[in-house]
Amino acid sequence: MITEEVGKRIRELRNKTGLSQEKFAAKIGMDRTYFASIELGKRNVALKNIEKIANGLDVPLSDLFKGI
Amino acid sequence: MITEEVGKRIRELRNKTGLSQEKFAAKIGMDRTYFASIELGKRNVALKNIEKIANGLDVPLSDLFKGI
Repeated sequence: MITEEVGKRIRELRNKTGLSQEKFAAKIGMDRTYFASIELGKRNVALKNIEKIANGLDVPLSDLFKGI
Repeated sequence: MITEEVGKRIRELRNKTGLSQEKFAAKIGMDRTYFASIELGKRNVALKNIEKIANGLDVPLSDLFKGI
């Protein structure tokens, strides 16, 4: 499922930053449990939050979808 | 705004298919007025609909965000 594929990719990129879910969520001003559920593929996340995450990861939006 | 940038990109790719908004929306099983509002950047569209659009355009998801 698309939400799981994107969630995995976000987790992979977030791990590269060395930040915990908690620290990363705080950095981008997102609720930690909401962010955790995105990584688990449980949320049909919308554009504005996708952008917020890409900005926090410091990658272009297209990178979130690379290989998906 | 991100919704406008993505909407423009979708319109650009949809125009390349030669399909009208109406025909394209019907092809992917989406309400025509909803699809039109996505192209206009008025919708904070979520992953599952983004995937549906990319599939209809026959492009990888990352193509929708190229250069954004």
